[in-house]
Amino acid sequence: MSNQEDQPDPTGNNDHLIKSADSQHPANLIPELCRKFWTLGWVTGTGGGASIRNDDLVYLAPSGVQKELMKPEDIYVLALSQQVDPKQRIYLRSPPAFKPSQCTPLFIAAFTKRNAGCCIHTHSQWAVLVTLLLETVQSDLFEINNIEQIKGFGKGFQKQGNLGYHDTLKIPVIENTPHEEDLTESLEEAMNKYPDTYAVLVRRHGIYVWGETVHKAKTQAERFDRPLFMEGNSADVF
Amino acid sequence: MSNQEDQPDPTGNNDHLIKSADSQHPANLIPELCRKFWTLGWVTGTGGGASIRNDDLVYLAPSGVQKELMKPEDIYVLALSQQVDPKQRIYLRSPPAFKPSQCTPLFIAAFTKRNAGCCIHTHSQWAVLVTLLLETVQSDLFEINNIEQIKGFGKGFQKQGNLGYHDTLKIPVIENTPHEEDLTESLEEAMNKYPDTYAVLVRRHGIYVWGETVHKAKTQAERFDRPLFMEGNSADVF
Amino acid sequence: MSNQEDQPDPTGNNDHLIKSADSQHPANLIPELCRKFWTLGWVTGTGGGASIRNDDLVYLAPSGVQKELMKPEDIYVLALSQQVDPKQRIYLRSPPAFKPSQCTPLFIAAFTKRNAGCCIHTHSQWAVLVTLLLETVQSDLFEINNIEQIKGFGKGFQKQGNLGYHDTLKIPVIENTPHEEDLTESLEEAMNKYPDTYAVLVRRHGIYVWGETVHKAKTQAERFDRPLFMEGNSADVF
Amino acid sequence: MSNQEDQPDPTGNNDHLIKSADSQHPANLIPELCRKFWTLGWVTGTGGGASIRNDDLVYLAPSGVQKELMKPEDIYVLALSQQVDPKQRIYLRSPPAFKPSQCTPLFIAAFTKRNAGCCIHTHSQWAVLVTLLLETVQSDLFEINNIEQIKGFGKGFQKQGNLGYHDTLKIPVIENTPHEEDLTESLEEAMNKYPDTYAVLVRRHGIYVWGETVHKAKTQAERFDRPLFMEGNSADVF
Repeated sequence: MSNQEDQPDPTGNNDHLIKSADSQHPANLIPELCRKFWTLGWVTGTGGGASIRNDDLVYLAPSGVQKELMKPEDIYVLALSQQVDPKQRIYLRSPPAFKPSQCTPLFIAAFTKRNAGCCIHTHSQWAVLVTLLLETVQSDLFEINNIEQIKGFGKGFQKQGNLGYHDTLKIPVIENTPHEEDLTESLEEAMNKYPDTYAVLVRRHGIYVWGETVHKAKTQAERFDRPLFMEGNSADVF
Repeated sequence: MSNQEDQPDPTGNNDHLIKSADSQHPANLIPELCRKFWTLGWVTGTGGGASIRNDDLVYLAPSGVQKELMKPEDIYVLALSQQVDPKQRIYLRSPPAFKPSQCTPLFIAAFTKRNAGCCIHTHSQWAVLVTLLLETVQSDLFEINNIEQIKGFGKGFQKQGNLGYHDTLKIPVIENTPHEEDLTESLEEAMNKYPDTYAVLVRRHGIYVWGETVHKAKTQAERFDRPLFMEGNSADVF
Repeated sequence: MSNQEDQPDPTGNNDHLIKSADSQHPANLIPELCRKFWTLGWVTGTGGGASIRNDDLVYLAPSGVQKELMKPEDIYVLALSQQVDPKQRIYLRSPPAFKPSQCTPLFIAAFTKRNAGCCIHTHSQWAVLVTLLLETVQSDLFEINNIEQIKGFGKGFQKQGNLGYHDTLKIPVIENTPHEEDLTESLEEAMNKYPDTYAVLVRRHGIYVWGETVHKAKTQAERFDRPLFMEGNSADVF
Repeated sequence: MSNQEDQPDPTGNNDHLIKSADSQHPANLIPELCRKFWTLGWVTGTGGGASIRNDDLVYLAPSGVQKELMKPEDIYVLALSQQVDPKQRIYLRSPPAFKPSQCTPLFIAAFTKRNAGCCIHTHSQWAVLVTLLLETVQSDLFEINNIEQIKGFGKGFQKQGNLGYHDTLKIPVIENTPHEEDLTESLEEAMNKYPDTYAVLVRRHGIYVWGETVHKAKTQAERFDRPLFMEGNSADVF
């Protein structure tokens, strides 16, 4: 469901913002990422997605689209600096046939609070399973250490270097809400409480992962999935 | 096995009904969907399939074909309005080398009783596993709530909006029969008993999923598979 | 390891036997099948393979080749009618750089004893797991009924029609041997004891599946894998 | 992290070393292998990789690259004979935008101590799970026999023939270290203690697999993954 007060761009559709022959342009990259995520089983049905920020411009997948079929023409674009009221979102470019994603405020939180360049949202089955396992012990924090995969994560926002093998990767778990946009407050709280995290798990829902670049966000998302698989597949082992 | 009384189109084969340069034409879409389903492991051997309705016309995959190799020329076409007797099915277009699918009456039930535009039948391993788990507690109803995936389902036939996160998704389970066409009666009964369902599980067999459009049916089929995976993989968790 | 007494074709290499523009020609089909099987995880390393019979001619994948990279030029061809001594196998066409597969006598058993048109050998992980589960109860027979997948199997050699849903699919399990060719005797014994089977499981090794045509053998192999998955994944359910 | 003292080639970048129209050239093969490994889930995030030796020349994937997107231009080349001090590694060819992989000394150990032609490093989830299972019994040796897959391994360094079905495949497990290059000593010790092994598991990390050729290393890596899957998936069975 879209936010009814979202304002389409009134002066034209600025299609030049999503047309580029460069395969690394966000409007080309987002569909390519979503195709990969569909193959990985991370985005099923129309759930999950990705957003890329390029300076002030934010590129967003729309709501309700089949993720493996997305095209550059389906991409929304907005300027962060133009956003005054989250309930009156201003888009520079809107696709004619879609609605904005409910994930938009969550992606924007990663961009504005963490200066992220890319944010990925998946419904990874391992992410969901782990939040269920943690629920049985009433935990809202996934912690893991002594596992090689965690070395792919930065030490945290504005810190140099990556986590070491003996460091502990901590991913907060927030409770799901009926409307995805209502996750924004608790996602921001989790970011405040765990300022160095690059991801937030959403109970019975999935995971948000971000990074300074598309490369960082994507490889961190892949690296998160593996320890979650380990935990989900062998809870008795750890 | 085909129904012996099926009547081929006596006046020519109407191949124009399955020839189109439009990738969204049902005769092109069904093979594309079946290739994806084969990759997902939903249609193994020759089992499973998909059917699309376009107003009065129904497009059907044939029986016994390798699903990842299907071609537009393999597609059956019939007009709903011409069907008088299920035992004397009239086809506008029949492929020369195949038999009609035994799923035909089940697909037609979704089209006529629910006004569906697309119906998908899979042998998803998670669907089968869940029917086995439910069998151990003598249940013929799969119920799940508080899981994000269910938000992808409409509230029901002729209702506005989608299920909420706290709503309960209910999928009836019907018992399998030796002949697939004999499932029709119990599928229709399940539709009557659960008028808002978009799917029916078939014990030790698979699942039927439908929707108003190909987009809806396909994304609902993907969304169903995930909670079934959750249930099948962690029965002790829920 | 090849049989040292294998005789290469002395009069030339008969490359015309493996050159065809027809995608359905056995020399084109075997590499395509093996690529699919590699993707399915059925043929890992160099293990597993497929053979096709066309009247008297038998086409065979070689030993030791990476299955997803196989080419028509890698295919062996022999004439069944020319085989007098299994230890002195006569090939009409041999690829220059490979050795004959140790599976050759097993494929030939399916062709000669069951008139099969295609025989597939996989190292399916579910097949291996099931033989291990059966080993714990000292069983050499996998039996399953009341599962839709079994309806894809014929009733048996020279019989009409397919298994019904309530019929019992029986697949004998033979013990593995150090040399694959030494399986031939027990495979043939299993064929004699279970004349209607289209497959034989090999303990701690994999499965042989055959059929009258490539279509039948392949779809049966796909259908076998699913009940084996069910059994391997939920031994307590059945 | 790269070794700070690594010396780029001072006399030009020798791009001719990584440009070839031959699909079997190491600079073309490494990216192709890494794409396959990404699809198999063996190399997630930027972890894992492959290296090929051609006589004195060693081709190496760089650090920190998305493995499914690697290009020949990303490949490092060094001459084994020019390496005097591991802390002062000399490269014939360095990609402009990357750092050398920390796996470099481990790959080189396989080349110099075992005369390998290719070495593969994966983060296979089954490899990691098995090291965790072995940890619960304080074991640093994975042993398996009577499983067909082991027949794909050579008997050992400078020995003729392959393991038999009744032989025991032994893979040592070494403890992980914070810096991957610090694994070198224990990897070499494991090679000394188990001179016939073609692989070393790294606890909570992954596996190194090598072979005389790319073909041998790759097919052995595929074959290792299957028994590890068996062990990880059915620890109670063996």
